[in-house]
Amino acid sequence: MQKMTPQNLRTPGPTPIPDDIVEAMTNPMINHRGPEFLALINKTTEQLKQVFMTKNDLYILTASGTGALEASVVNTLSPGDRVLAATAGSFGDRFCDLAEAYGADLTRMEFEWGRPIDPDAIRKALQGDPSYKAVMVTHNETSTGVTHPVEEIAKIVKGEFGKLLLVDAVSSLGCLPLPVDAWDCDLVGTASQKGFMIPPGLAFISISEAGWEAQQTAKMPRFYFDLASAKRTLARGQTPFTPNVALLYGLSLALDKMLEEGLENVYGRHASIGQFTRDSVLDLGLELLVADQSYASNSVTAVKMPASVDGKKFMSMMRTDQNVVLAGGQGKLSDDIFRIGHLGHVVKDDINEVIVALKKVLPEVGFKS
Amino acid sequence: MQKMTPQNLRTPGPTPIPDDIVEAMTNPMINHRGPEFLALINKTTEQLKQVFMTKNDLYILTASGTGALEASVVNTLSPGDRVLAATAGSFGDRFCDLAEAYGADLTRMEFEWGRPIDPDAIRKALQGDPSYKAVMVTHNETSTGVTHPVEEIAKIVKGEFGKLLLVDAVSSLGCLPLPVDAWDCDLVGTASQKGFMIPPGLAFISISEAGWEAQQTAKMPRFYFDLASAKRTLARGQTPFTPNVALLYGLSLALDKMLEEGLENVYGRHASIGQFTRDSVLDLGLELLVADQSYASNSVTAVKMPASVDGKKFMSMMRTDQNVVLAGGQGKLSDDIFRIGHLGHVVKDDINEVIVALKKVLPEVGFKS
Repeated sequence: MQKMTPQNLRTPGPTPIPDDIVEAMTNPMINHRGPEFLALINKTTEQLKQVFMTKNDLYILTASGTGALEASVVNTLSPGDRVLAATAGSFGDRFCDLAEAYGADLTRMEFEWGRPIDPDAIRKALQGDPSYKAVMVTHNETSTGVTHPVEEIAKIVKGEFGKLLLVDAVSSLGCLPLPVDAWDCDLVGTASQKGFMIPPGLAFISISEAGWEAQQTAKMPRFYFDLASAKRTLARGQTPFTPNVALLYGLSLALDKMLEEGLENVYGRHASIGQFTRDSVLDLGLELLVADQSYASNSVTAVKMPASVDGKKFMSMMRTDQNVVLAGGQGKLSDDIFRIGHLGHVVKDDINEVIVALKKVLPEVGFKS
Repeated sequence: MQKMTPQNLRTPGPTPIPDDIVEAMTNPMINHRGPEFLALINKTTEQLKQVFMTKNDLYILTASGTGALEASVVNTLSPGDRVLAATAGSFGDRFCDLAEAYGADLTRMEFEWGRPIDPDAIRKALQGDPSYKAVMVTHNETSTGVTHPVEEIAKIVKGEFGKLLLVDAVSSLGCLPLPVDAWDCDLVGTASQKGFMIPPGLAFISISEAGWEAQQTAKMPRFYFDLASAKRTLARGQTPFTPNVALLYGLSLALDKMLEEGLENVYGRHASIGQFTRDSVLDLGLELLVADQSYASNSVTAVKMPASVDGKKFMSMMRTDQNVVLAGGQGKLSDDIFRIGHLGHVVKDDINEVIVALKKVLPEVGFKS
């Protein structure tokens, strides 16, 4: 296989992988029921708990992030359970679709795409109907570049109403602060190809005491994503099904690097690069999707596609002429925005390259600032 | 991360990875919604169909093999559906547990571990009860080293009764002949870490016309493993959820290598090494679990643990003193056997090393031939 030329990959996952992590993943295969694997799974699980800032149980699943979200639903709910789900984008919608596929009786609170979820609306909904068992929320909506106020939402859902809180943290955990225990989030799911600087293919999920209690009576069917079997097998240093050993090698080194950098520094780096991205984009005369930067995501920025620009041609020229791969819009924003990912292994120079490329390409596709 | 010393890894998956495949997996990440990925997923899917010997639809899932088996069940059945499941080992049992977790009304036909499933017993069961909708069977039972007669079983299930046939081909596909169309198997699931010479983390599933028909009315809940969304997204060269890009690079080269070697040669190599393994083990005065080699697996050999031998000490000495990693027994055979994997990237010398090691270690742990 001829080696591919690296691109400036600015999708919000997969993200570029640091060379030493790529190298770590080339370690030889081992028996996933043997002592070497036991050491590997125990180390990475403990380090992940540090990144999740939790003492809760935590499991590594061989799946995409959606697998962790499916695990959060099917392990805690029964068909017919009343669930309040707040959504303001494609991934919020996906979380809803997932719970409905398993028979949850879901109330879908839809917020404007590009705006944050309103915690007070959640309070009112919970006040208005005591039958809700759980609330589902997306921490960072990848499709719009909005970080939702999960801390405030958790205070209401957990502190005021004592409901179960399920959090999609796929594009936030390891990039943006999400102290799982301090905020009291019950089920939190994320994935390897975002903040963790490794390829897609692993998902991580934490589950609280209240989550385990719910699990006792939860009747949604589950097998591959059953956390009870994950718990049983992890007790002996194994996983229920053959795990992705190569990615675990990468994860192990990635976690060493993240903890060595320090979580506050990791968050600080994302915040500073996020701000730099938004400032630079605005300087070019482009508009952000978010009306107010107070809720702008520090892992991905959504930029309005200028009306004068041919979006397809723009994305294609950025990729083929400038070697910069941006993400398009999703769902109802497909034609209205483009997105710049700045998460995981990202430095300011990566974004500078994007800005230089935008300066070259935009005038060629009809943009007038 | 310090580079680990390769072991002679003789578990029946994960298997050692050829160097050029390891190298292919170090290619840079790409956008999984972009043109490079489209080319990759289309190429690997088409080549997998060649290895499956099928014109059926086929999907690559980011999961362990059990994920493909879950997909085969939840996409074709409804809770309460009558299912006939033949099992003669840990993995047959797991397939049953999975279907029961989703509410199948399952009849578990148990055969002796180390013996093949009897096709005539399946015929009788189907004759005795016309209400069965599907039959589930394991092609190669990894826990016992037995290859079950799926061709004969398929003739009965499909040819005589027209029922749906779900096949666990995790440790057979790509090692042992399983011409999916010629044998008329509806749902066939397998995984990356067995015959395909890449790490664990991808699962492959084929689905027939009859499978799609069943899917129309199948009411088991599904989201992550929903093949309808896999179909919709593959039509535009994508996957429903972020796929394991690194493993797909490895898979792409692995499929090139398998098709270049030729499937008949791949099967021939496994058959010859399987025979060599059994002959060598018998030469040492050990006993095979299978009473009759006509149904012995050519991907894994189960050897009876001699009564005089301390099994734990034996396995540990093989690993630490000889660098040979064998697999233990599973389920009710945990203490009674050890297993030698010979699948995927395996040559005669790998087995020779095992035999040399056995000759050294066995006398030290109490074995008298």
